[in-house]
Amino acid sequence: MKWNQDDLGEMNKRYRATFINSLAGIKTAVLVGTIGPDNITNLAIFNSLIHIGANPPMYGLLFRPDTVRRDTLNHILKTKSYTLNYMHIDDAVKAHQTSAKYESHESEFEKVGLTPIFDQVCPAPFVKEAPVKIAMQFEERVDIKSNGTILLIGKIQSIEIDQTLVAQDGFVSLDKAEILACCGLDAYYRTEKLMRLSYAKPEIWPTQLD
Amino acid sequence: MKWNQDDLGEMNKRYRATFINSLAGIKTAVLVGTIGPDNITNLAIFNSLIHIGANPPMYGLLFRPDTVRRDTLNHILKTKSYTLNYMHIDDAVKAHQTSAKYESHESEFEKVGLTPIFDQVCPAPFVKEAPVKIAMQFEERVDIKSNGTILLIGKIQSIEIDQTLVAQDGFVSLDKAEILACCGLDAYYRTEKLMRLSYAKPEIWPTQLD
Repeated sequence: MKWNQDDLGEMNKRYRATFINSLAGIKTAVLVGTIGPDNITNLAIFNSLIHIGANPPMYGLLFRPDTVRRDTLNHILKTKSYTLNYMHIDDAVKAHQTSAKYESHESEFEKVGLTPIFDQVCPAPFVKEAPVKIAMQFEERVDIKSNGTILLIGKIQSIEIDQTLVAQDGFVSLDKAEILACCGLDAYYRTEKLMRLSYAKPEIWPTQLD
Repeated sequence: MKWNQDDLGEMNKRYRATFINSLAGIKTAVLVGTIGPDNITNLAIFNSLIHIGANPPMYGLLFRPDTVRRDTLNHILKTKSYTLNYMHIDDAVKAHQTSAKYESHESEFEKVGLTPIFDQVCPAPFVKEAPVKIAMQFEERVDIKSNGTILLIGKIQSIEIDQTLVAQDGFVSLDKAEILACCGLDAYYRTEKLMRLSYAKPEIWPTQLD
């Protein structure tokens, strides 16, 4: 079936939001940890993490204008610090529950049953239960004129993962740790590695690495 | 194991690129179709598609300064038109092979064995074999100062998918079509749905929708 711009414009608003959101693809789910005024810890789920660069290591995170997670953005802009936490598939319900509209003085950590932990370098809380913990430092705010969304760029400060997930060439097998993926606002996925392929060159088909 | 900024800085350049790229997560693989001068069709694989907004429907695509896929960016800026094509997992090798450095006068479609098709509205080629075909119109170029990457925003012009993949509320089950996902520059994945969860509300655990 084919939908054109008129069809999309005539869709029920909620139907279109679900349609367009889910069609954007399946991605690793990220719990973003921040610290607010009065040291209230905050945790919110995102599916908009993108790789920006490896040297220096930088990731981007998109904030939509209609999102309820402005607490997260405000805390990052104020403290310059946040954490990215990837969760095990068994924690899908807890991860999803961080998207509920809790009050600013309430901590999603406590409400959903996850444990905030800290290190000396990063003021923002990590999720103790997360197999992947990344400390980030705010680097740049990029305002997108088209619809008021904000791309937030951060520098990686530290990475904590089990060494066994990292291959000899640096490749991180997130599937080995059964890291949770998500799609749209409410669907959760597991991922299964098919293969790695050799560097692609013209006129030669790639070979399977593992 | 924990790596800090100094550890990351001291890493071998290629190792760090693989490490940071793959750690950014698993995402639906997207083949971007464009048309160049002399009507040469172009196809390149990306793992940086993000949802920007549903009303109007807009997606973003990140171009890194070190990427070989500047053909794609140049064609989009010139023609204002591109397509997003999601592939079946069985086409992983062909999808990967589009990342080889073919000459500008060579078409990746022909080289990897995929079929370009066109419609009346969109000058850019679709991949006939793709279970998901999205026509995009260039909307905004966003330059990221931190490292020279470019976020390209486009408006969705049309969407073509099998109606059976779309649930009653608009949710698109990409896993039902066995859509290819990827991680870093060379790893390919299948995804498996765990569940959809009800809208999260404070003080009530979500229920499983399907």
